[in-house]
Amino acid sequence: MKVDPFGDSTIKDYEKLFKEFGIEPLKPLLKKVKNKHIFMRRGIDFAHRGFGKFLASKKRAVMSGIKPTGEFHLGSKMIAEKIIYFQKEFGAKGFYAVADIEAYEDNGIPLEESADIAIDNVADALALGLDPKNAYIYKQSDEIQVQRMAFLFAPKVTNNTMRAIYGHRKVGLYMAALLQTGDILMPAMEFGFKSTLVPIGVDQDPHIRLTRDIAAKFRLPLPSSIYNKFFRALDGGPKMSKRNPMGYLTLNDPPDVVKKKVTNALTGGRDTVTEQKRLGGRPEKCMIYELLHFHFEPDDKELKKLRKECESGELLCGECKARALEKILKFYRGHQSKKKRMLPKAGKILSR
Amino acid sequence: MKVDPFGDSTIKDYEKLFKEFGIEPLKPLLKKVKNKHIFMRRGIDFAHRGFGKFLASKKRAVMSGIKPTGEFHLGSKMIAEKIIYFQKEFGAKGFYAVADIEAYEDNGIPLEESADIAIDNVADALALGLDPKNAYIYKQSDEIQVQRMAFLFAPKVTNNTMRAIYGHRKVGLYMAALLQTGDILMPAMEFGFKSTLVPIGVDQDPHIRLTRDIAAKFRLPLPSSIYNKFFRALDGGPKMSKRNPMGYLTLNDPPDVVKKKVTNALTGGRDTVTEQKRLGGRPEKCMIYELLHFHFEPDDKELKKLRKECESGELLCGECKARALEKILKFYRGHQSKKKRMLPKAGKILSR
Repeated sequence: MKVDPFGDSTIKDYEKLFKEFGIEPLKPLLKKVKNKHIFMRRGIDFAHRGFGKFLASKKRAVMSGIKPTGEFHLGSKMIAEKIIYFQKEFGAKGFYAVADIEAYEDNGIPLEESADIAIDNVADALALGLDPKNAYIYKQSDEIQVQRMAFLFAPKVTNNTMRAIYGHRKVGLYMAALLQTGDILMPAMEFGFKSTLVPIGVDQDPHIRLTRDIAAKFRLPLPSSIYNKFFRALDGGPKMSKRNPMGYLTLNDPPDVVKKKVTNALTGGRDTVTEQKRLGGRPEKCMIYELLHFHFEPDDKELKKLRKECESGELLCGECKARALEKILKFYRGHQSKKKRMLPKAGKILSR
Repeated sequence: MKVDPFGDSTIKDYEKLFKEFGIEPLKPLLKKVKNKHIFMRRGIDFAHRGFGKFLASKKRAVMSGIKPTGEFHLGSKMIAEKIIYFQKEFGAKGFYAVADIEAYEDNGIPLEESADIAIDNVADALALGLDPKNAYIYKQSDEIQVQRMAFLFAPKVTNNTMRAIYGHRKVGLYMAALLQTGDILMPAMEFGFKSTLVPIGVDQDPHIRLTRDIAAKFRLPLPSSIYNKFFRALDGGPKMSKRNPMGYLTLNDPPDVVKKKVTNALTGGRDTVTEQKRLGGRPEKCMIYELLHFHFEPDDKELKKLRKECESGELLCGECKARALEKILKFYRGHQSKKKRMLPKAGKILSR
């Protein structure tokens, strides 16, 4: 099993992460959370480090971000939604980093290019509900505090530590990793927050390990993290990938592209209608179900009902896809119109 | 032979540098320089990379700096004087970097501590004649352009290159090295200078090798450099060292300390007066002579006369020391009073 924030992570067994990397299961802490996010209710947010400390804390920040390498996809949507959730439910101040230096170090995208992508990405986050009045939104390349922190932390990290966490990498990637620790610790160091929660995909855990190590050395409060499972590729592959654009939805996809992608998605249907009526569908294999489960069916009862109808063989894939598509396109219409209105604001926020 | 900008360089044979590292002797180019600095006239500035290109260029910058680890010493004075010379004689714009991040990475000096040292150091540079109206004076920690450049350059440098130039080091020192390339290339990248000259001690040549390598990759004009020999320790050791404070003068030393250090300095005198009168003194061994040669006797004729008087046995060490001390203390009186007046200006320049 490989957990690599810069490459392909192959995580087949989420449970193993608890043993191998010492992250903790989220479930036992959820009774302390009143209004649970659907990711919490549905086991999508499944693990954490130090989440209990975050819950017990008063002056809270929630920090994450986006690597501006392309359009906002459903994975980016999950992260933004979690920040928004912790802003609203916990009054946490949001920190949203546009990791343009990482996009350059890791993906070779020049800052001039990612500057335009960043505006588009931030407009998506705002349209999803990120409240800019209670958030600090910035590009790494503009943020001297974060860059200075990367230099500040560097001498306290041995090359052995870097290699143990990230493998043998170029100095540029180590620097990108240190910059991320700057992003994560800025709320504590520059804004005095006692507790910072970092909602991310579990493949980003190495950054948290490094950051907690550094925080301890600098006597800063250790950041907490909450990890979600990956949203799989629409063809059922383990993770969305830029190499397979038909395998994921971006929030910029026009309706006909959304329709095409959803229509082509892997389902849990059987070979024949007769067989499906007899055996029922398999939601756990079905990407239509996953779309609803992760993103487009906020009502637990509705989702449960759908699952039952599917498994009983009552609801067939054609009808189910049509219903799902309707919900998805409804979201898209609302989002894309809101997002269009947010573009100037995003541009303004990022222009300094 | 070891040339290490972060450690102890052991350079016993300056000629070897031409062969081993491909730096070039300065002498052949000096006929093109009208008003030569005493370092040029006296072979103290002895080597370069691309100095001919600098001479031929129009829009010129001269860039160097100081690592704020303590008081301005005679080595810092040499660097500042060279910047001042190229400002005055060549109309070059001066760039003076206070390498506070390097002081932190390499020497563990916190930024808060080096901030005070920096003001003191910059006041010395101003008192020596650095013209702030034609200079850009900054601390690395305040300069987002320089930090951003370190990140920009990082992915184009392999770990092998870093190891070949600097040896096996912690990631923090590699980052400090990349930051220096940012300092050196800022005049070209951010201010559009076609030609940047970097006057430094020859032990800093590794930074120039790295920077020229990076400049070529980013199609920036290659920086030029001009190298001075080290001013030795007052006890005749190869180089001043913090471990031996009696071995070097700082520009903050009060007159009695200067007197004590100069009085105790190694001379080229003989065991007895009789012997010295017979055989003459040895200026090449004498640190009093070196003080005058590098710093306190700008008049070539006077220096030549002194050398002759010494070698003939006519001038004995006691008398020579007394004369030298007079010149040195005269400089100190003037400098320290000017410097005191410059402190508020230095503070203002660095407070942003």
